[in-house]
Amino acid sequence: MSSSGVEQVPLLKDVEKDRYDGVIVKMKEPMDPEAFRASLRASISQWRLEGKKGVWIKLPIGLSNLVHPAVEEGFWYHHAEPAAKPDAEPDAKLDAEPDAKTAYLMLVYWIPNTPSTLPANASHRVGVGGFVMNSKREVLVVKETSGKLKGMWKLPTGVVDEGEDVLTAARREVLEETGIETETDSVEVLAFRQSHKSFFTKSDLLFVCLLVPTSFEIKKQIAEIEAAQWMPIDAYADQASVKKNQQFSAIAEICIKRSKQQITGFTPKAATTGSGKKTYIYCPK
Amino acid sequence: MSSSGVEQVPLLKDVEKDRYDGVIVKMKEPMDPEAFRASLRASISQWRLEGKKGVWIKLPIGLSNLVHPAVEEGFWYHHAEPAAKPDAEPDAKLDAEPDAKTAYLMLVYWIPNTPSTLPANASHRVGVGGFVMNSKREVLVVKETSGKLKGMWKLPTGVVDEGEDVLTAARREVLEETGIETETDSVEVLAFRQSHKSFFTKSDLLFVCLLVPTSFEIKKQIAEIEAAQWMPIDAYADQASVKKNQQFSAIAEICIKRSKQQITGFTPKAATTGSGKKTYIYCPK
Repeated sequence: MSSSGVEQVPLLKDVEKDRYDGVIVKMKEPMDPEAFRASLRASISQWRLEGKKGVWIKLPIGLSNLVHPAVEEGFWYHHAEPAAKPDAEPDAKLDAEPDAKTAYLMLVYWIPNTPSTLPANASHRVGVGGFVMNSKREVLVVKETSGKLKGMWKLPTGVVDEGEDVLTAARREVLEETGIETETDSVEVLAFRQSHKSFFTKSDLLFVCLLVPTSFEIKKQIAEIEAAQWMPIDAYADQASVKKNQQFSAIAEICIKRSKQQITGFTPKAATTGSGKKTYIYCPK
Repeated sequence: MSSSGVEQVPLLKDVEKDRYDGVIVKMKEPMDPEAFRASLRASISQWRLEGKKGVWIKLPIGLSNLVHPAVEEGFWYHHAEPAAKPDAEPDAKLDAEPDAKTAYLMLVYWIPNTPSTLPANASHRVGVGGFVMNSKREVLVVKETSGKLKGMWKLPTGVVDEGEDVLTAARREVLEETGIETETDSVEVLAFRQSHKSFFTKSDLLFVCLLVPTSFEIKKQIAEIEAAQWMPIDAYADQASVKKNQQFSAIAEICIKRSKQQITGFTPKAATTGSGKKTYIYCPK
């Protein structure tokens, strides 16, 4: 009790300002849930007086006992991740593995009596398909061991890892699935397809990339691939499974047009952002 | 107690199978945290015997008191959303607003002694920029009221809502920011840019779309836009803020090339997926 007889509730620590008149609380140390609730309530009163808008609480998975009191104080889920990568060194592979030190839940609260302008969560998963053709107009195709496309010869495809460039992902997936190496400097995006509700509620973007092979001996490398081969491009497009599916046949048609040099796609240009990050812009030559 | 003297713990209800030898628990009714913990433990033992792999628990925000016991039993955060949309009717706008009935946290657990093959969370936010040019080779530009780009004349840009097509988003953002209506059938993607760590740990894809205006009177409509105008395309590209930024100058160059018809972009083709969903494939004509 303070001298005024009013109990002093300590405010939350580890509070940073964001760029939009909001605050970010990065909880690090364990805290008793009831003490947390009282501090959170006192802190929100203080932030309201200061005219703050959005309040973000980043809770490591080790502090999951604080989720419930935060929700009871009016907080909402914004997003959660199995592992947060260190800002300095993007390594997308880390994301797939849960990590007790960095997995977290992000909670949000909007203080003003105005509509929330909090940004939405990531909305898309991004995939790549590799169109690799040799000098005999044969295309590199694979058969998957399971799933809806089992039995069909298809382009190697996969998911872009977090932090990975589209062109890097396309080359990596082709290498992983077939052992075929491809040129770095000749990647061309021939088409992309957007579809919705393909993964939980999320949307999906698939980029079909032309890749130029530098090796030709197929070495199937991963369990999800049953077989891989070089196949005449017309035989690939003539498969019943390709012909009956509008998406597959449209993409096969694009690949055939490109193989006859009737069309060209987008090539990547490296650029630097205003804040000094490397980026790629994919556009017509 | 049962007759054997062993306490019978009820298994979890509302369990569905997924397509990958896993199970999905959709918790709907409130449950005592300790009873939940015991049922979860008993259920996992049962699933282990059955050879199940991934276990998903979808917890509505109203059951946030069950997060901590699930984590203590070894579950991990996979993703969380402020609102889950009904599967039948995509309405992206809902996502921005928290919804007590549908906000949820998805937790996962991997039973086998093998590396997890659980799919990664959505990794990208997707944005659009509208390149709208009138017959006088003037481009539609806006000034933002705040942020890093304040003071610069720039293309109207915005975030693609969950479930929204790229071409729809580009037309919507131009309309919202400037009041200018554009043709549905003439959208062309001129370039896209991928950048990383632009939003929490997530990546960002921006699609620059050529749009053909059908109205010409500017009516600035939203608070985040300070001003909008038609501007000679060369004056737009000659701004110091454009010239000193590699990304902005590359995109301005693409727009100028397109205005001189030296390049063409990708046009959308409507297609139907194998499961009957509508989709767009963006590719060279």
